[in-house]
Amino acid sequence: MSLIVAKFGGSSVSDAASIRRVAGRIAQMHADGNDVVVVVSAMGDTTDELIDLSEDVCAGVEPPRREMDILLTAGERISMALLAMAINAHGVRAQSFTGQQAGVLTDSSHGDARIIDVTPGRIARCLGKGNVAIVAGFQGVNVDENDVTTLGRGGSDTTAVALAAALDADVCEIYTDVDGVFTADPRIVPTARRIRQVTSEEMLELAANGAKILHLRAVEYARRYGVTLHVRSSFSMNTGTLVVPPSEQEEPMEAPIISGVAHDRSQAKVTCVGVPDVPGAAARLFESVAAAGVNIDMIVQNVSVAGSGETDISFTLPATDISTVRPVLDELARELGYTEVLYKENVGKLSLVGAGMRSHPGVSAKLFGALRDAGVNIEMISTSEIRISVVTESDDLDTAVRAVHTAFGLDATEVEAVVYGGTGR
Amino acid sequence: MSLIVAKFGGSSVSDAASIRRVAGRIAQMHADGNDVVVVVSAMGDTTDELIDLSEDVCAGVEPPRREMDILLTAGERISMALLAMAINAHGVRAQSFTGQQAGVLTDSSHGDARIIDVTPGRIARCLGKGNVAIVAGFQGVNVDENDVTTLGRGGSDTTAVALAAALDADVCEIYTDVDGVFTADPRIVPTARRIRQVTSEEMLELAANGAKILHLRAVEYARRYGVTLHVRSSFSMNTGTLVVPPSEQEEPMEAPIISGVAHDRSQAKVTCVGVPDVPGAAARLFESVAAAGVNIDMIVQNVSVAGSGETDISFTLPATDISTVRPVLDELARELGYTEVLYKENVGKLSLVGAGMRSHPGVSAKLFGALRDAGVNIEMISTSEIRISVVTESDDLDTAVRAVHTAFGLDATEVEAVVYGGTGR
Repeated sequence: MSLIVAKFGGSSVSDAASIRRVAGRIAQMHADGNDVVVVVSAMGDTTDELIDLSEDVCAGVEPPRREMDILLTAGERISMALLAMAINAHGVRAQSFTGQQAGVLTDSSHGDARIIDVTPGRIARCLGKGNVAIVAGFQGVNVDENDVTTLGRGGSDTTAVALAAALDADVCEIYTDVDGVFTADPRIVPTARRIRQVTSEEMLELAANGAKILHLRAVEYARRYGVTLHVRSSFSMNTGTLVVPPSEQEEPMEAPIISGVAHDRSQAKVTCVGVPDVPGAAARLFESVAAAGVNIDMIVQNVSVAGSGETDISFTLPATDISTVRPVLDELARELGYTEVLYKENVGKLSLVGAGMRSHPGVSAKLFGALRDAGVNIEMISTSEIRISVVTESDDLDTAVRAVHTAFGLDATEVEAVVYGGTGR
Repeated sequence: MSLIVAKFGGSSVSDAASIRRVAGRIAQMHADGNDVVVVVSAMGDTTDELIDLSEDVCAGVEPPRREMDILLTAGERISMALLAMAINAHGVRAQSFTGQQAGVLTDSSHGDARIIDVTPGRIARCLGKGNVAIVAGFQGVNVDENDVTTLGRGGSDTTAVALAAALDADVCEIYTDVDGVFTADPRIVPTARRIRQVTSEEMLELAANGAKILHLRAVEYARRYGVTLHVRSSFSMNTGTLVVPPSEQEEPMEAPIISGVAHDRSQAKVTCVGVPDVPGAAARLFESVAAAGVNIDMIVQNVSVAGSGETDISFTLPATDISTVRPVLDELARELGYTEVLYKENVGKLSLVGAGMRSHPGVSAKLFGALRDAGVNIEMISTSEIRISVVTESDDLDTAVRAVHTAFGLDATEVEAVVYGGTGR
């Protein structure tokens, strides 16, 4: 008998039929002798519909974030109550709980609240009575005012991991619309394989570098608190991908060198041309960008041409932040004296991730070779202990991902069936 | 400057455009220097849609009432957040509050909870800052478990009156889709007039006897706590009907003899034929019916024919309760020895209500005369201090209402415009 926290996203509970199907699955888990806590997102398009309504009533005025949180969390209240009813209809007692009732305590950053503590006493009592507990994902309550808050993107995954940690669950199952984490996006690489097991560190690098199946924040939480994740499909009974914390990972000698290839098309590249090559210029530049709340990913500073006293500095950031960073860089041009700022929105980033990289030299060389052979030009490079990322032209990205996937022997001999649906939150 | 509690039903906030209109009206109340607390129902058909969804997922199994309450209260959370946003868009600060946050504490009867206490400290603080407070109608929280509860039919009216009482508001405005309370249903009597003022006692009799504009429970609450109600239209700026508590009512001599004519088509008539005329037979009968949870309205016991030793007992009850009462009466026939039970579902009830009746004899005679002249047969009669009710054939009810309305001089010389929409909860 295990304690399972199972999270079902919006695409798994998009309508009454889906809810009945998920309820049957949960009833079976319970019949198998497990204690089950279910974290559920809002049904299918509910969130988008509520956002549309808010825009309609606000007539162009930005709504208060507190009210936006109250509005959006209604979606999870609907799905959690319906799911509890559907499980009861299977003869299994189930009770639904809001974020507040489940003890998800947060700060007061409406729309993007941080979890401060999880006190799931009521959930534990519900399980103690042999009942299934259904918890609203994505929401908590702030400790100052007892106001409902939302956890931002990936909030339901985070709720599930936080509850799994607080309840010391055996596993946190993340149900989604594909069979797990793949060695690359199967839409780009049809021969991509399901990864059977990956460390949370590797998953962190994959999620941070474009793999959308799990949200970075939930993976970080799982790694920090030693929670084992099982990413699997709600549309099949197949085993998915286990994401294991460092303490439980397999022996290094068994770890594959490369876990997977992530890609990201959401970044842009900015180049400041002709930055005076004096101490502190780069520091001043990145301090100003950080002060504007923009996260920079990769940085490349060219070696200055001897005697010119000038250098070019390039960096990548989310393309959506260009409008924020543009006035900052224009302002700074006067102070630092660079001559021009170039913005390039069509860049692609490819990241090769693998814990085995640590002990296997030559991975970079093989990567660069594969890209050269595929005719893909590399614009920027950055590395971590277990990752190598390169920036390419956006148009070259698919070619690059396929070439690298093949070069590192990741291609499957048979193509696995992959089901796609919407994505939950 | 007044403290106004204003309740808007589902038909007043049926879509984004309606919400913007109501928001404009509230912003104007605030600009006029009033402290404003708004109680809001779920948008238009939201509740029906949620009930449909619950039936879809439950596949014929009765859903737990606790979960049903969680589901249905999501509707008010959506409307209250949207209304708060829409008011903010008018430049007036507004915050929305759940029943729990507004301090609406109830017992644990999910689906039909009773208010135990109202502790609106947070609402008072919101008003103290000069903000508008929006409160979810229809919902509270039970004191044992902090679980959301619903107040049953008319719940939003009750929320508004309870908050008005707890905050010592100057008036509780009930916004609806007609211009107030009329001397009869304008759909039956086109010359019905808007009543300018009525006592809560009279309103109680009108509501209890078929006038649907205000829910009985809200009127009872208003009478008990001395809250003045103003029933008015959200579609016009017209003054509506004031419902005043006993302490504030006009001098009796100015009170009209008759306030209005209510009608009710939801009752059925049951007759037990040949009940032995022995002491305690009737008591036994009505005890058993009450034990089944059925509320009996009118009772008539025929004088027994001399020497027969038998009598017929008739009573009225909600037609929907016939299925509940039938096995009870069949069972009791063996014990009490009556020979037959007759059920008649097509009965109509007409009630004439007026505080002036107390001091004006002859009202009954005039009523019976008017019905006789209209050719309407009276099947049962019951009276209170300020009301006379008669049961007629259902088909005769409209004729009866019109005849009585005319006989008591209630007809207006001009027909008022009446707007109908949906009805909120």
